[in-house]
Amino acid sequence: MISVENALKLVKEQVQPLSRSAEVSLNNAFGRYLSEDVLSKIDMPPFPQSGMDGYAVHFSEEIDRYELIGEIAAGSDFHPSLKLGQAVRIFTGGAVPESATTVVRQEDVLVEDGWISFTAGVKQNMNIRPKAEQIAVDEIALPKGSYLDAAAIGYLGMLGHDRVHVIDSPKVAILTTGDELVKPGQALAYGQVYESNSIMLEQAFRSKSIHQIQHVKLPDDYDQTVAAIEKVLNDCDLIVLSGGISVGDYDYVKSGLEANGVEEVFYKVKQKPGKPLFFGTKNQKCIFALPGNPAAALTAFYVYLFPALQQMQGGQFEGCTRIQLPIATDYIRKAKRAEFLKGKIENNEVAVLSAQSSAMLSSFTQADGLIYIPFETLELKKGDEVEVLLI
Amino acid sequence: MISVENALKLVKEQVQPLSRSAEVSLNNAFGRYLSEDVLSKIDMPPFPQSGMDGYAVHFSEEIDRYELIGEIAAGSDFHPSLKLGQAVRIFTGGAVPESATTVVRQEDVLVEDGWISFTAGVKQNMNIRPKAEQIAVDEIALPKGSYLDAAAIGYLGMLGHDRVHVIDSPKVAILTTGDELVKPGQALAYGQVYESNSIMLEQAFRSKSIHQIQHVKLPDDYDQTVAAIEKVLNDCDLIVLSGGISVGDYDYVKSGLEANGVEEVFYKVKQKPGKPLFFGTKNQKCIFALPGNPAAALTAFYVYLFPALQQMQGGQFEGCTRIQLPIATDYIRKAKRAEFLKGKIENNEVAVLSAQSSAMLSSFTQADGLIYIPFETLELKKGDEVEVLLI
Repeated sequence: MISVENALKLVKEQVQPLSRSAEVSLNNAFGRYLSEDVLSKIDMPPFPQSGMDGYAVHFSEEIDRYELIGEIAAGSDFHPSLKLGQAVRIFTGGAVPESATTVVRQEDVLVEDGWISFTAGVKQNMNIRPKAEQIAVDEIALPKGSYLDAAAIGYLGMLGHDRVHVIDSPKVAILTTGDELVKPGQALAYGQVYESNSIMLEQAFRSKSIHQIQHVKLPDDYDQTVAAIEKVLNDCDLIVLSGGISVGDYDYVKSGLEANGVEEVFYKVKQKPGKPLFFGTKNQKCIFALPGNPAAALTAFYVYLFPALQQMQGGQFEGCTRIQLPIATDYIRKAKRAEFLKGKIENNEVAVLSAQSSAMLSSFTQADGLIYIPFETLELKKGDEVEVLLI
Repeated sequence: MISVENALKLVKEQVQPLSRSAEVSLNNAFGRYLSEDVLSKIDMPPFPQSGMDGYAVHFSEEIDRYELIGEIAAGSDFHPSLKLGQAVRIFTGGAVPESATTVVRQEDVLVEDGWISFTAGVKQNMNIRPKAEQIAVDEIALPKGSYLDAAAIGYLGMLGHDRVHVIDSPKVAILTTGDELVKPGQALAYGQVYESNSIMLEQAFRSKSIHQIQHVKLPDDYDQTVAAIEKVLNDCDLIVLSGGISVGDYDYVKSGLEANGVEEVFYKVKQKPGKPLFFGTKNQKCIFALPGNPAAALTAFYVYLFPALQQMQGGQFEGCTRIQLPIATDYIRKAKRAEFLKGKIENNEVAVLSAQSSAMLSSFTQADGLIYIPFETLELKKGDEVEVLLI
């Protein structure tokens, strides 16, 4: 049984970035990771740009009145050569002529008979965004491995890109075992419960922009199990077993993985929930067997699978953002393992939600984050700082 | 010009939850909000459930050895009537017979010739999850307005649901103006820049699970503008104008909104970036005109549009999670307005990223959150706590 820290270290060491990449339109790039540096196609701004609605002026401290010789709307290609003492009307975003030395905002300007004068102090070089102030043509806009969120997509669009090269989205298989499990919507017989881990995990993957997901129900038969595992190892990059490798199905799944040459990296982590967590690899494919208890499986997703997915796509192995917050109540650790507790952030404290059992999901539906109680921490007083993984 | 706090208050007062709802499969419910309370279809667990692999025992402190009379796998409908002194093998998740009074984990059991004895202390009622411990049939599992994330979807599946009623996803129109704007991928003429706000905002909406989005490029013509606004007011729930209501296009858009009976709730907010923010309503439809500068537009999305979307879908007007963190450097506010700064969280501090200009998106691509500097705060010392909106 290894520590949480060692388990994370081993996952980080073993997960390989996918080598496949694809060119996609910017509109379909959300949630993906760049497979190469992206350079700016342009100087941004492409010209000295007015930051205000106002007047572009060939200015001198000696001159009080300026002759108005035209208007430059945003997008206009009018670029007059202003002589000293001349000005043009200009709008935010408009190209400031090279001959203009400052832009005076309209609130500070008096217009009279084609001439302007100023009602506030003016100096050279006001309200002009220099050409290439943000970035010059061919400079790196976003490096390889960058995550494409709304801001990144807007930024690349602003710099002229409509297509980008991204790492392929990992193909995921979710394998479920367990004859006691019935699909939601059907009736339960005595002894049966609903199988909801696969739909829960599928949604968790979707929330991380992973959409190529197949479900496989593993049969209760050795040969078929070996064949099913062989098939997903060929087709997919990431295999997730839900129901884990517990006694009931231990032999088939474990021996099915072994028969397919999957190498165990670790089995069992000193944590609660989710002790029976298995991680193995084969030819750069990753195999996680998650605990069957839903809250344990979802915790393992956020703690281990999320950073693995990031790294698999060429991003950093970061996982959930971690912050420190004061805990809202005293807490005494009961388990002899590190704990991940469902927590709710309110008034800049994090409260431990009730219903923390690994079988229970209700507290997860209320949670903003997972409070991490390291193995070394036995007791916390209200107000002590704890680490929270934001989910 | 109103304050950030007043602007948020007015948005919250005006945004109405959509009345349309739909029944969707649980698999398509991610990111939606329940339109009604959802009750549990079952007791969960539906029977007293074993929390361990071990032995279910009709236990007495007087008895040392128990007769093993069978096995209950998870899902088995075998429910023997155990006499005092009898036991059955049972697996995690299996239905504990009513006649069993405790479950002893297998690590603490010695099996010999069909009889078991214990190697550790045993008492009544161990390792049994009581029937309906999590929830009883017909109790409210999740109330109306609940947000459906992976945990909520797993929870409803676990309780037997395969379909749920959710509030309709708002229909959104993104209207862009500005003849200087060119689509990415094309060449720029002098004075032109790329239009990337619409794709950036579309991705921001998608990140909040809003997918019914139409783009409309507003023509530079009064009658056509009135007609285009009329059409989206009929078709959509939320209208977003990118490029805002600045001088260049002020008349057409502003008068186009007025001609369509849109009532102004506010115009201009005492904030940086994003002062020229317009919010109006017509028949429960919301109209936001966002500033044209990309970083200002995206800030407005996170601060105002995100909570509006939540409330429109029957959720709480919460917006981004807000936490307090120490600021990593001294900061002196320059603007005479409240500020939202792009911030990066590291080592439990938040650093103010460079390139904060409202025209610049590069810092947004690095940001974990927006640091809110209220109007009253003029100066911050390194280590002072600031509010961060997590994005």
